[in-house]
Amino acid sequence: MKKSRPRKSKKQLSKKIGMAPGSLVYVGSMDANAAQLAKPIVSVMIYDAAELTEQILSAEALANFKLTDYSKAGKKVWLNVHGVHDAALIKQIGDLFHLHPLVQEDILNTEQRPKVDEFDDYVFLETRCFRYDQAAMTMDSEQVSFVLGRDYLLTFQERATGNFEPVRTRMRVSRAHIRELGVDYLAYALLDSVVDKYFSVLEAVGDASEALEEVLLHKPTNTELHAIHQLKHVSIELRRAVWPLREVINTLSRNENDFFKPTTMPYLRDVYDHTVSFIESLESIRDALSGMMDIYMASVSQRVNLEVRALTVVAMLFMPATLIAGIFGMNFHEMPWLADKDGFWWAMGLMLSIALVMLTIFWRRQWLTSQS
Amino acid sequence: MKKSRPRKSKKQLSKKIGMAPGSLVYVGSMDANAAQLAKPIVSVMIYDAAELTEQILSAEALANFKLTDYSKAGKKVWLNVHGVHDAALIKQIGDLFHLHPLVQEDILNTEQRPKVDEFDDYVFLETRCFRYDQAAMTMDSEQVSFVLGRDYLLTFQERATGNFEPVRTRMRVSRAHIRELGVDYLAYALLDSVVDKYFSVLEAVGDASEALEEVLLHKPTNTELHAIHQLKHVSIELRRAVWPLREVINTLSRNENDFFKPTTMPYLRDVYDHTVSFIESLESIRDALSGMMDIYMASVSQRVNLEVRALTVVAMLFMPATLIAGIFGMNFHEMPWLADKDGFWWAMGLMLSIALVMLTIFWRRQWLTSQS
Amino acid sequence: MKKSRPRKSKKQLSKKIGMAPGSLVYVGSMDANAAQLAKPIVSVMIYDAAELTEQILSAEALANFKLTDYSKAGKKVWLNVHGVHDAALIKQIGDLFHLHPLVQEDILNTEQRPKVDEFDDYVFLETRCFRYDQAAMTMDSEQVSFVLGRDYLLTFQERATGNFEPVRTRMRVSRAHIRELGVDYLAYALLDSVVDKYFSVLEAVGDASEALEEVLLHKPTNTELHAIHQLKHVSIELRRAVWPLREVINTLSRNENDFFKPTTMPYLRDVYDHTVSFIESLESIRDALSGMMDIYMASVSQRVNLEVRALTVVAMLFMPATLIAGIFGMNFHEMPWLADKDGFWWAMGLMLSIALVMLTIFWRRQWLTSQS
Amino acid sequence: MKKSRPRKSKKQLSKKIGMAPGSLVYVGSMDANAAQLAKPIVSVMIYDAAELTEQILSAEALANFKLTDYSKAGKKVWLNVHGVHDAALIKQIGDLFHLHPLVQEDILNTEQRPKVDEFDDYVFLETRCFRYDQAAMTMDSEQVSFVLGRDYLLTFQERATGNFEPVRTRMRVSRAHIRELGVDYLAYALLDSVVDKYFSVLEAVGDASEALEEVLLHKPTNTELHAIHQLKHVSIELRRAVWPLREVINTLSRNENDFFKPTTMPYLRDVYDHTVSFIESLESIRDALSGMMDIYMASVSQRVNLEVRALTVVAMLFMPATLIAGIFGMNFHEMPWLADKDGFWWAMGLMLSIALVMLTIFWRRQWLTSQS
Amino acid sequence: MKKSRPRKSKKQLSKKIGMAPGSLVYVGSMDANAAQLAKPIVSVMIYDAAELTEQILSAEALANFKLTDYSKAGKKVWLNVHGVHDAALIKQIGDLFHLHPLVQEDILNTEQRPKVDEFDDYVFLETRCFRYDQAAMTMDSEQVSFVLGRDYLLTFQERATGNFEPVRTRMRVSRAHIRELGVDYLAYALLDSVVDKYFSVLEAVGDASEALEEVLLHKPTNTELHAIHQLKHVSIELRRAVWPLREVINTLSRNENDFFKPTTMPYLRDVYDHTVSFIESLESIRDALSGMMDIYMASVSQRVNLEVRALTVVAMLFMPATLIAGIFGMNFHEMPWLADKDGFWWAMGLMLSIALVMLTIFWRRQWLTSQS
Ligand SMILES: [Mg+2]
Ligand SMILES: [Mg+2]
Ligand SMILES: [Mg+2]
Ligand SMILES: [Mg+2]
Ligand SMILES: [Mg+2]
Ligand SMILES: [Mg+2]
Ligand SMILES: [Mg+2]
Ligand SMILES: [Mg+2]
Ligand SMILES: [Mg+2]
Ligand SMILES: [Mg+2]
Ligand SMILES: [Mg+2]
Ligand SMILES: [Mg+2]
Ligand SMILES: [Mg+2]
Ligand SMILES: [Mg+2]
Ligand SMILES: [Mg+2]
Ligand SMILES: [Mg+2]
Ligand SMILES: [Mg+2]
Ligand SMILES: [Mg+2]
Ligand SMILES: [Mg+2]
Ligand SMILES: [Mg+2]
Ligand SMILES: [Mg+2]
Ligand SMILES: [Mg+2]
Ligand SMILES: [Mg+2]
Ligand SMILES: [Mg+2]
Ligand SMILES: [Mg+2]
Ligand SMILES: [Mg+2]
Ligand SMILES: [Mg+2]
Ligand SMILES: [Mg+2]
Ligand SMILES: [Mg+2]
Ligand SMILES: [Mg+2]
Ligand SMILES: [Mg+2]
Repeated sequence: MKKSRPRKSKKQLSKKIGMAPGSLVYVGSMDANAAQLAKPIVSVMIYDAAELTEQILSAEALANFKLTDYSKAGKKVWLNVHGVHDAALIKQIGDLFHLHPLVQEDILNTEQRPKVDEFDDYVFLETRCFRYDQAAMTMDSEQVSFVLGRDYLLTFQERATGNFEPVRTRMRVSRAHIRELGVDYLAYALLDSVVDKYFSVLEAVGDASEALEEVLLHKPTNTELHAIHQLKHVSIELRRAVWPLREVINTLSRNENDFFKPTTMPYLRDVYDHTVSFIESLESIRDALSGMMDIYMASVSQRVNLEVRALTVVAMLFMPATLIAGIFGMNFHEMPWLADKDGFWWAMGLMLSIALVMLTIFWRRQWLTSQS
Repeated sequence: MKKSRPRKSKKQLSKKIGMAPGSLVYVGSMDANAAQLAKPIVSVMIYDAAELTEQILSAEALANFKLTDYSKAGKKVWLNVHGVHDAALIKQIGDLFHLHPLVQEDILNTEQRPKVDEFDDYVFLETRCFRYDQAAMTMDSEQVSFVLGRDYLLTFQERATGNFEPVRTRMRVSRAHIRELGVDYLAYALLDSVVDKYFSVLEAVGDASEALEEVLLHKPTNTELHAIHQLKHVSIELRRAVWPLREVINTLSRNENDFFKPTTMPYLRDVYDHTVSFIESLESIRDALSGMMDIYMASVSQRVNLEVRALTVVAMLFMPATLIAGIFGMNFHEMPWLADKDGFWWAMGLMLSIALVMLTIFWRRQWLTSQS
Repeated sequence: MKKSRPRKSKKQLSKKIGMAPGSLVYVGSMDANAAQLAKPIVSVMIYDAAELTEQILSAEALANFKLTDYSKAGKKVWLNVHGVHDAALIKQIGDLFHLHPLVQEDILNTEQRPKVDEFDDYVFLETRCFRYDQAAMTMDSEQVSFVLGRDYLLTFQERATGNFEPVRTRMRVSRAHIRELGVDYLAYALLDSVVDKYFSVLEAVGDASEALEEVLLHKPTNTELHAIHQLKHVSIELRRAVWPLREVINTLSRNENDFFKPTTMPYLRDVYDHTVSFIESLESIRDALSGMMDIYMASVSQRVNLEVRALTVVAMLFMPATLIAGIFGMNFHEMPWLADKDGFWWAMGLMLSIALVMLTIFWRRQWLTSQS
Repeated sequence: MKKSRPRKSKKQLSKKIGMAPGSLVYVGSMDANAAQLAKPIVSVMIYDAAELTEQILSAEALANFKLTDYSKAGKKVWLNVHGVHDAALIKQIGDLFHLHPLVQEDILNTEQRPKVDEFDDYVFLETRCFRYDQAAMTMDSEQVSFVLGRDYLLTFQERATGNFEPVRTRMRVSRAHIRELGVDYLAYALLDSVVDKYFSVLEAVGDASEALEEVLLHKPTNTELHAIHQLKHVSIELRRAVWPLREVINTLSRNENDFFKPTTMPYLRDVYDHTVSFIESLESIRDALSGMMDIYMASVSQRVNLEVRALTVVAMLFMPATLIAGIFGMNFHEMPWLADKDGFWWAMGLMLSIALVMLTIFWRRQWLTSQS
Repeated sequence: MKKSRPRKSKKQLSKKIGMAPGSLVYVGSMDANAAQLAKPIVSVMIYDAAELTEQILSAEALANFKLTDYSKAGKKVWLNVHGVHDAALIKQIGDLFHLHPLVQEDILNTEQRPKVDEFDDYVFLETRCFRYDQAAMTMDSEQVSFVLGRDYLLTFQERATGNFEPVRTRMRVSRAHIRELGVDYLAYALLDSVVDKYFSVLEAVGDASEALEEVLLHKPTNTELHAIHQLKHVSIELRRAVWPLREVINTLSRNENDFFKPTTMPYLRDVYDHTVSFIESLESIRDALSGMMDIYMASVSQRVNLEVRALTVVAMLFMPATLIAGIFGMNFHEMPWLADKDGFWWAMGLMLSIALVMLTIFWRRQWLTSQS
C-alpha cells in the first residue's frame, strides 16, 4: 500500500539491496489498517456457463488444489488473493501455477509500476488501484496483479477493498453472459472496474480543484496554497500510475497474443480509450492547478499593492495636517494667525482643505475602491 | 452536454462504475435547456440524385423502418437523432442497424473523446461541437456521433442546435451535387460544418484575448485576471476536443477504408488541414494567454513600485519639515530665531527650501512621472 | 493579407461557414492599401533559353490563352497574378489550367497554412510572405500560392510587393542560366526569394530584441514591456508560417515526384537548410525574449527593493530626531536641559549624532549606493 | 570520481585536447579520499559450479595471467579492478584481453556517460555509481566499467566502495545458483546491485524533499532555498546518469547479442523496469522540487503582504492620534477645550475612539490575524 | 566570424537577397581582428606513411596544382585555407576540386548551421568552432568547412586560430600512425580537435555558472543578473552549434558511405559520444542557469521582505513614543503629570517601556535577525 503523502515507511525498496533476484520479500507497509488482513484470504470461483462454485481456500485446500481437475472438465478458475504480505503463500501459489520467480517477486514488491510481461503459459499484468481521502486531499494506492492463463485467472490485491464485488455480483447471476465467455473477458471486466475507479478519484480531484479556483480568485490564503500543493501531489501520483497502464493496455489490445481472444479485443480497446480520456482530463486538471498557482501569486501581489496604497493614502492624508499642527506649535514670538480669534479654525480649515484635495485626487485615480 | 465551466452535474461517469460493458445508460446532464428536447426527434432523409424524401419518424414508423427497402432501390439514407438521453430509443436504432453494444454505449455516454472505430459494416465517429458564450467566456460542448455505413449515415446530436441546417438546405436543392455523391460525401460535409463551427469559437476567443491585451498593458484589474483564467479554461477544452479529432480525420484520410471513396479523400484531407490550422491558431492564443499572465504580474509589480515611490516621495517631503516644526516647538529657554521678528518666516523658508531641493532631486530621477 | 497585430477584419473564415466545399469566396481583407490592386494584374512570361516574351494579359487575352500553343513549341510559361480578391478571375484561370476546386478555394482563402498537395498534373504549394514594420513592431503577411505543372508555373500573390522582381530581372538577361532550366528551377528560385525575405525580417526582429536587452538591463519601463510583447507576437506569427513551410520543402526535396527534376533537388535541399536555420535562429530569439521578460520582472522587483530601502533610510534618519524634538516640546514643569544655555544645541547635537550613527550603519551595509 | 557540487578539479577533460585518440591518460581527480586507493587492487574470481578460487593479483601474477588456461578448463573468470588512475595498469589489462584502444581510453576517462559498445569478442558497458551525503545534500559519483566476454567479465571501479560485496558473498556460497550460470548472469547481478544502489539515493533525496516541504509551507528561510537548490543539482546529476543507462539496458535486453543468453534476458528486462521506475520517481521528485520553489516564492510574497499590513495598521492607529496631539499642541491664543477641566481627557478619549474604530475595521477585514 | 553578443555587422545574410543561388559572395564580417588575415593563406600537406611535404601555395602554385599528380603516386593531400573572405580564391579552389556551386557558396557563407552533404566524389561538412572570452562572458564563433574526397581533404577556416596545430604536430612525426591511415582518419582527427575545443568552452561556462551560484545565494546584485543573461546567451549559441553537429556525426557514423572506412567508424562513434555528452552537460548548465534566475528572484523578494520588516520595526518603536511626546506637548490647562516633579521621567519611562515591550515581541518573532 502506498500513500501519496505523507508516507511513513519509506525504506521499502532498500530492503532488497544486494539480494538475489527473485528473493521473495514483501515490499510494502504492514500498517494496522483495518482493510489490510493479518492473514491473506484466498478465494476461488470455479465456473462455466451452467455452474458456479465459490469457496475460501484454507491452507490445506490450497495445498491440494489441482488446476487440471477443473480445466479438463472445461471449467474456468478465478483465484483471488487479498493481502500479499505473506511471502510463503505467494510462493506456494506461484509454484502451483508455475509462475517465474521474477513474477512472484513483482507480486510481493508492491511498489511496481504498471507493466505487462508475456510468458509462454500466461500473461502477467501489474496495475495500481487508488483510494482518495477527500478531506485530507491525500491518496492511498494499492497494487493489483493479474496472471491470466488459458483457463485460469489469478488476481492479487493488497487489501480487501471490495473493488471486485460488482463483477462478482454479475457472475453470481444464473447463466450470466460473463460466465459464458472466457477468463480473458473476466480479466477485462476486472481491469475495467479498476479503471472506472480512477474516474471517481478524478472527479473528486476535479471538484476540489474547481472549488479552490472559486476561493482563489477572491480571497486566497495559505490554506489554498497548501491545497493546491496537495492536489498536485495527487495528480503526479495518478499520472505515474496511468501513463504506464495506458501502454500496457495498448500493448494488449494491438498485438496478437494467445490469452485475449479476438472477440475481447474491442473491449480492451474500450478500456484503452478510457485510459487515454483519463490522461487528458488529468492533464487539464494539472494545467488548471498550474494556472491556480499563478493566480495565487497574482492575488498576493495585488493585495500587497492594495495595502501599500492604503498606507500611502493614510500617510498623504495625515502628514500635511501633522506638519501644519507642528508649525502652529512652534514657539516663535511672532507668528501669523496665532492671535487671531479664528486662527485655530483657519488652521483646522487648512488641514481639512488639504485632506479634501487629497481625497479628490485619490478618488479620481480610483485609489479608494478596493478593486485594483 | 458539457460546460467548460462551471459544471453542475459532475458525477456522470461514476454512475457507470461496476456496470457490465455495453450497459446502456445516458451519461450527460438533463437540464431544462430549451435546446434539449424532452423527447428525442428522429428525422430521416431518403435521397438519390433525382429525389429527396424527408420525414420525422414516429415511434411506430421507426419500428417498421427497413433499410433494405431503400438500399435495394439505390436510395441513400441519412437518419438524424436530436437528443440522446433516451437509452431505449438508442438501443432500438442501434439494433436496427446492427451496431455493436459498445458503440451504442458510446453514443449514450456523451463525455467521450473524439475517436474513430472501424467495424465490418460501418465506421463509427465521435466528435464534439461547441457553443461559446461571449459574455460569460464559458463554452458548452455537445457530442455528435456519426455511423457511416455503405448506403446510410446515422448522426446523433445531444441538442437541436441547427448546426446541420446549412447542409440540409444544400440537399433540398433539386439535383444538388451533394445528392449525386455517396453518403461518405454527406458525412464529410457534416464533419466539415462541425469543424467550421470551431473557427467561429476560435475567432471569438481570439477577439476576447486581444481585447484583454489592450486593457492589460494599461490598467489591469482582478477582472482581467479572471478573464484570462476563463479563456485558458476554454482553450484547454477546445484543445482536448480538437487534438484527437485531428488524429481521427488523419486516420480516415490516410488509410484505405471501405466507407470513404477515393474521390472523397481530397475533401477529408481538406478538413484535416483545417484541424491542423485550428490547432496552430489555438496554440498561438494559448501562448498569448500565457504572455498576458506574465504581463499582468509585471504590471502589478510595476504599480507596487510606483506606489512605494509615491509613499517615499511624500515621506521625504514632509518628514524634514515636520522635524523642523518640532525643533522650533521645543521648550528650551534659549533657542535661536525664536525671538527674531522674521524667525517664523525663516523657518518656513527652510522647510520650503528643503522640500524644493527634494523635489528637484525627484524630478531629476524622474520619480514624479507615473511612467516607471 | 494578414496583420500579426492589430488585426481589423477578423470575421474572415466565418464567412464560409455552411458553404459547400470549393465555394469560391475571397477570404482576406480588401483594405485601401496602396499595394493591393483594385483590379488584379495577370502577367505572363513565355520563355525558353533563346527567347523571352513578357506581357500583361487583358481579360480578353486571358480568355483566349491556350497553354498547348506554347508547350508544343517547347516554350515554358510563367503566369503570375497580383491580387486574388477577384473570385471570378481565379475561377477562370483555375479552369483554364484544370485546377481542382479545392485548390482554387485555397488560393482565394488567404489564411491558409503553408502546405503542399500533389495532383496528377501539377503540384500545389501554399506559402506566406512577410513585411515587417520596424517602428510599430508589427508584421503584415500575404499568401503566395504556386501551381507547378510540367511546363508551366502559376503564382498568385495577394499584393504587388515586388518580391519576385529580382528573379524577373535575372530572367530578362539574354540566354540566362535560369531560362535554360525547367519551370521547376524557376519555382525553386521564387521559393528561395520568399525564404530569403524571411531572413531580413528575422534580422530586424533580432536587432530590435538586442536593442531592448540593452535598455532592460538598465532602465526598464512599460514601453519595453509592450515591445517585448509585440516581438513575441511577431515571433509566434513567423513560427506558424515557417514550421509548416519546412515540412513542405522537406517533402518536396526528399520524395521522388514528377515535377521537380533530380538536378533541382540539391537546390531544394539548400532552401530546406535555410528554413531549418531560420527556425533555429527564431527559437533563439524566442528564448531571448522569454529571458527578457524574466529580467524585466527582476529589475522591477529590484527597484521596489531599492525604494523600500530609501523609505526605510529616510524614516530611520528622521523618526528619532522628530521624537527628540517632541520630547523637548513636552510641557512638563521640570525637564532637564531646558533651562541650560546650550540645551538647544545639546538636543540638536543628539539628533545629529543619532543620524550620523544611522548613516554609518547604512553605509556599512551599502544601503546608500543605488547598486542593490 | 565526480562530485555533483562543489567540484574542485574541473580541468579534467581539457587535459586531453589535441591528444591522439586512444591516448591513455587518467581523467578524474586523485584526491586524498580514503576510499581511493593509492595503488589499484586487481582481484580475480575463477569459478564454476563446483569450485571458486579467489585471489589478489600482484603485478607479477597479472603479467603471467592467461585467460585460456581457465577457459579451456570450462572455468569462468571475473577480474575486478579497484582504482583506475594507473594508466599503465589499465593498458596492461586492456592488452591482455585485447580491448580496443578507445575502450581502454573510456575506462580511464571517468567522466563518460553510460553507454554500450559491442565488439566482436566482448561487449563494453559504462555505468555510474553514486554515494549521497545526506548532511551536505551533495553526491559523489564514480564510474563503473564492465567488459563482458564469452567466458570472462572485467569490472573497473574508481574506488573501493564495497558495492559488489553482496554479490561476492552470494558467490562464495557452495554450489550457489549464480555460479552455475554464465558470466552474463554475473554481469546482470552486478548491474542490478548498481541500480539497486540508485534507489537508496532516491529514497534519501525523496525524504529530504518531503522534509523540506513541511518546513516550506510554514516558515521558509534562505536555508530552504539553498536546500532546494542542492536537491535540484543532485536530481539533475542522477538524471544524467540514469537516462542513458536506461537506453543501454534497453539495447541489451531487446537486441539479440552473443554475450547475454536468452535465459538472462528476463533478468535484464527486470533491471530495465527498475530504471524506468527510477526515472519516473525522479521526475516526480523534480516536479515536487519545482513546486517547492513556487511555494517558497508564494510564502515570501505572502509575508511581505503581512508585514506591509502590520505597518499599515500601526500607521493608521498612531497617525490620527499624533495629529490630534499636534493640534492641541498648537499655540493659538484661542482654542476650544484647552481651558476645560476635562479637555485633556476629551482629547485622549477622541484619540482612543478613533483607534477603536480603526481596530474594529481591521478586525472585520481580518487584518489582525496572521493568516493572510 | 560570429559573436554571440554583441554583434556589430548584422546585415550579412540580407546581402544575398535576390541573388542567383551559387552566387559567390563572402557573408561574414571583415573586422580588423588580428587573427583574420587580410590575404587568405593556402597551405598544403602531401603525405604518405613514409614522407611528408608541407608548403604554402602562392597564387601561381595554386593555379598549377594538380591533384592527380599526387593521387597517382598514392600520396594523400590535405589542403587548408585560412580566411575565406576572398570569393575568387574559393572559386578557384572549388573549381580545381570540382565542388558544386552550392558547396562553394556554403563555404563563403559563414553563418551556416552544421550539416553534411554527400556528393558523388566528396562529402561536405560544415562545423563551427568557438572562442570564449572569460572576462566579458561572450563568445566568438567561426565556420570550419571540410571537403573529404577519396584521397584528399580540404579544410576552410575563417581565421588562423591554431586549432589544427596539434594534429599537424602529430603528422610531422616520422612514420606517424596518422600518416599510415587515410584522409578519412585525418578528417576525424581534425573533427575531434574541434569537438575537444567545445569542452574547454563548456568548462569555462560551467565554472562561471558555479561561481555565480555562490554569490547569488548570498548577495545578488544587478551584476549577477547581467552575468546570468550573458551565460544564457552563450549556452543558446553553443546549443545551436552542437545539436546539428551531433546529427551530422551520427549520420556519418551510422550510414555506409564511400568516404569513411569501416576502421574509422569506431572513432567517429567516439566523437559522436562526445557530442552527446557535451549536449547533456550543456543542458545541465542551462537548467542550473534557469534555477539561478529563480534564486535571484527569490533573494530579491526575500530582501524586500527584510527591509519592509526593518521599516515596520522602526515605525513601531518610534510612533508610540512620538505620540506620547505629542500628548505631553498639548497645551491643556489641566493635564496629569505635568506638574509632578518626576513627570518627565515617568513619561520617558512610559516611552521606554512600550519600546521594550515591542522589542520583546519582535525578538520572539525573530524579526530582529536578518535571517528571514
Ligand atoms: Mg493530452
Ligand atoms: Mg503531458
Ligand atoms: Mg498541456
Ligand atoms: Mg499532455
Ligand atoms: Mg494536454
Ligand atoms: Mg506548460
Ligand atoms: Mg510557472
Ligand atoms: Mg504548431
Ligand atoms: Mg503545445
Ligand atoms: Mg507553442
Ligand atoms: Mg503544440
Ligand atoms: Mg506550437
Ligand atoms: Mg527547436
Ligand atoms: Mg534547435
Ligand atoms: Mg522549439
Ligand atoms: Mg518553444
Ligand atoms: Mg531551441
Ligand atoms: Mg529551447
Ligand atoms: Mg515563464
Ligand atoms: Mg514519466
Ligand atoms: Mg521531465
Ligand atoms: Mg513526469
Ligand atoms: Mg518524464
Ligand atoms: Mg511533468
Ligand atoms: Mg515551465
Ligand atoms: Mg539529457
Ligand atoms: Mg532541455
Ligand atoms: Mg533538462
Ligand atoms: Mg535534452
Ligand atoms: Mg534533458
Ligand atoms: Mg520557471
